[in-house]
Amino acid sequence: MNSGYIFHQLFEAETSTYTYVIADLATKEAAIIDPVFEMLERDLRLINELGLNLKYVLDTHIHADHITGASELRKRTGAKTCVSKDANVECVDISLQDQSELNLGSKKIKVLATPGHTNTCLSYLFENLIFTGDSLMIRTCGRTDFQQGSSDKMFSSVRETLFQLPDDTMIYPGHDYKGYTSSNIGTEKKFNSRLRTSISKDEFKKIMSELKLAPPKKIQQAVPANLVCGDIGGQQMLKYKTVNGIPEVEPEVLRQNLRLVENKKILLVDVRRADEFTGELGHIENALLRTLGPELENFLSGTDKDTEIIFVCRSGARSGQATSESLRIGFKKVANLKGGMILWNQLSLPISRS
Amino acid sequence: MNSGYIFHQLFEAETSTYTYVIADLATKEAAIIDPVFEMLERDLRLINELGLNLKYVLDTHIHADHITGASELRKRTGAKTCVSKDANVECVDISLQDQSELNLGSKKIKVLATPGHTNTCLSYLFENLIFTGDSLMIRTCGRTDFQQGSSDKMFSSVRETLFQLPDDTMIYPGHDYKGYTSSNIGTEKKFNSRLRTSISKDEFKKIMSELKLAPPKKIQQAVPANLVCGDIGGQQMLKYKTVNGIPEVEPEVLRQNLRLVENKKILLVDVRRADEFTGELGHIENALLRTLGPELENFLSGTDKDTEIIFVCRSGARSGQATSESLRIGFKKVANLKGGMILWNQLSLPISRS
Repeated sequence: MNSGYIFHQLFEAETSTYTYVIADLATKEAAIIDPVFEMLERDLRLINELGLNLKYVLDTHIHADHITGASELRKRTGAKTCVSKDANVECVDISLQDQSELNLGSKKIKVLATPGHTNTCLSYLFENLIFTGDSLMIRTCGRTDFQQGSSDKMFSSVRETLFQLPDDTMIYPGHDYKGYTSSNIGTEKKFNSRLRTSISKDEFKKIMSELKLAPPKKIQQAVPANLVCGDIGGQQMLKYKTVNGIPEVEPEVLRQNLRLVENKKILLVDVRRADEFTGELGHIENALLRTLGPELENFLSGTDKDTEIIFVCRSGARSGQATSESLRIGFKKVANLKGGMILWNQLSLPISRS
Repeated sequence: MNSGYIFHQLFEAETSTYTYVIADLATKEAAIIDPVFEMLERDLRLINELGLNLKYVLDTHIHADHITGASELRKRTGAKTCVSKDANVECVDISLQDQSELNLGSKKIKVLATPGHTNTCLSYLFENLIFTGDSLMIRTCGRTDFQQGSSDKMFSSVRETLFQLPDDTMIYPGHDYKGYTSSNIGTEKKFNSRLRTSISKDEFKKIMSELKLAPPKKIQQAVPANLVCGDIGGQQMLKYKTVNGIPEVEPEVLRQNLRLVENKKILLVDVRRADEFTGELGHIENALLRTLGPELENFLSGTDKDTEIIFVCRSGARSGQATSESLRIGFKKVANLKGGMILWNQLSLPISRS
C-alpha cells in the first residue's frame, strides 16, 4: 500500500485524540506522535509486535485536553521526547523548531512551525503524510482562544505553510470529533469550513472570535502535567469531591476513565459480598472483588499506599467505610464511587455480569 | 499513496463502528460499507465533496448494535443496497453470495462468505483491502453467541478464507473498541489473541464459549430495523420510560444520541426563559429555545406530529408539562428529559454556554 514505511493511526475515544506510529520499514526505526497517557499499554504492545525501535516521542504541542505519554514512553523504551523549543519544557530531550529534521533510517521527519492553536504548535511531515496536530484539522481547525493561541497566526500557518504542500499530501490531525480519519491538502483547500481558500483572513478571524467554546474538561490537570512531559508519578488521576469528609468520585468521571482501570493505573475495588458481585446489579468491568472485612484489610495491608483506589459497593455506604478506613491507614489517593452500583446502573453505565 | 482508488475510513463513536467509502478514481464510481443511520449527513457530505457516484451500499451483515443507513442512502442517492442472499432481507436490491463480484469502474469488489459472527456475514475485497465486518477484527474477532453465530464457522472463515489472502492485505474491520484503525493478514496470523495460527480450533471454541458478554444495548431495536434495510420511518428512536404517565428519557440515553439531535432526526426543545437558556446552567448544544407558553404552543402547532421531540427545562417540571401538552394535541414520540439541566450538569454531560 505504501513504499518503504509503516504507518498506524490509533484513536483514544474519550478526548477523540489520534496517536500515530510511523517507522522506516528497512531499519524499523520509529516515532510516535501525540501518545495519550492512558493508552500506553496498547501503544507499547503495537510497537513490540511490529518489532519497532522507538527513537522519538513527538508532541505536536502542549496539549490541554489529555496528558502526554512522553515521559512514560521514554522510561520504558529509551526514546527521546521532542517538542517545540519555544514551549520551554525542561524535561524534553530534543527541542525542535521550524525546519528541524529527525531521521528514521534513511527517511526524514521534517518539522514545520504552525502556530495558531498555541504559539508552539508544530506539524510533522513524513514522506507524503503531514501530522498537523490541532492546527489544520479535517474540515475545521483547532481553537485559538488559550495558551497564546492566535487566529492571525493560525491563518498564516495554514495558508502560507500547510497549503503550500502538494495537494495530495495526506493530512492526519491530532483530533477529530466527527469520525473522519484523514483528508488531504487539496480537499481542505476546497472544503475546510473555516480555512478553505475562498475565505478571507477577516472572515476567518470573525469565525474564530465567535466560537465561545467551553474550556477542555481536563485543562487544569493536563497543561501542568504536559509541561513535565506527562510525568505525573505522584499525582491523583481522577477528580474527587469531598462529601462529609470522604472523597467521592462521580460515576461519569469514573466512566470517562475506565481505561485507567483497565490499564491498572487505578484500582477499582468492589467491597460487596461475592454473591452480590455476580448478582443482578452486576459489577464494573475490571473491578477487583475484596469484600469489606478481613479480605479487604488483608488486601490493603499488601498494597502500596501510593496506589489510587476507587471503592464501590451497592449504594455507597460500605465503600465509604472502606475509603475512610484506607485514609486512616495512610492511603492518600482513595475515593468512594458515589451512589454505588445502584446509581451506576440507573445511569446505564457499562457493567459486566460475567 | 495508492494507485487508482479513493479510500476513506469513518468512525461512529457510540457503537465504535467503522464505515468505509471506496471508489474508483477514474470513474468516481463508489461504494459505502456499513453506513450508520445517525451518521448519514456526514457520509453524504463526504460523498458529494469528493464528487463520487454512489453505486452500492454494502452491509457486511445484519447488525445488532446499530441501524444501517442503507435505506436512506438508497432514497437519497439511488445506490443499490446489498447484503447476503441468505439473510432473506426482502428490501435489498442485490443479494450477494460467496464469489459474487461488483464493479466500480474497471475495478472489482469481490465478495467472500465469512460466516461465524452471524451465519450471513460477508467480507469485501477491493484491491489490497479486505473489509471484514465482525469476522476477523484487529487482534480479536466478533462474538458468535447470537444470530446463528458459530465459533466453528468463524474458525473456518478466518483460517480457510481470510488467512489465505496475501500477508500484506490490509484489514479494515467493522468495529474496534481499542482505537486500532487497521491491520494486515500477516500481523493477525501472528498476534490475533483468538485466531493466530498457533491456536487450535478447540482452544478457539473454548475461548469463545467462555466470553459471556452482555447483549448489545440496541439489539432489540437494531435487528428488526436492519431486516428492513434500516427503514425506520415511523419508529421512535430513543428509549423512554413512563413515569407518572409522562414518557421520560435518561440523560445518559440522550447523551448517547446527541448526533440524532445534531442531525435533526430528533428535536431537543428547551422550554425555559431566554435568560435561563444563556445563564449559568448553560444549555445542551443544538437545543432549540421555545419558552413554555405562547412561543412553544405556536411552535408545536407548526410542527409535524410525527416529529420526535425531547423537552428540557431546569429541573424537569416545565418540560414535563410540555411533554403532556404535546401528547394531548397529538404528538406520539415526545419525552421529558429526566432531571433537566440540573441533573445533566451534575453528571458532567456536555453543555454549551454560547
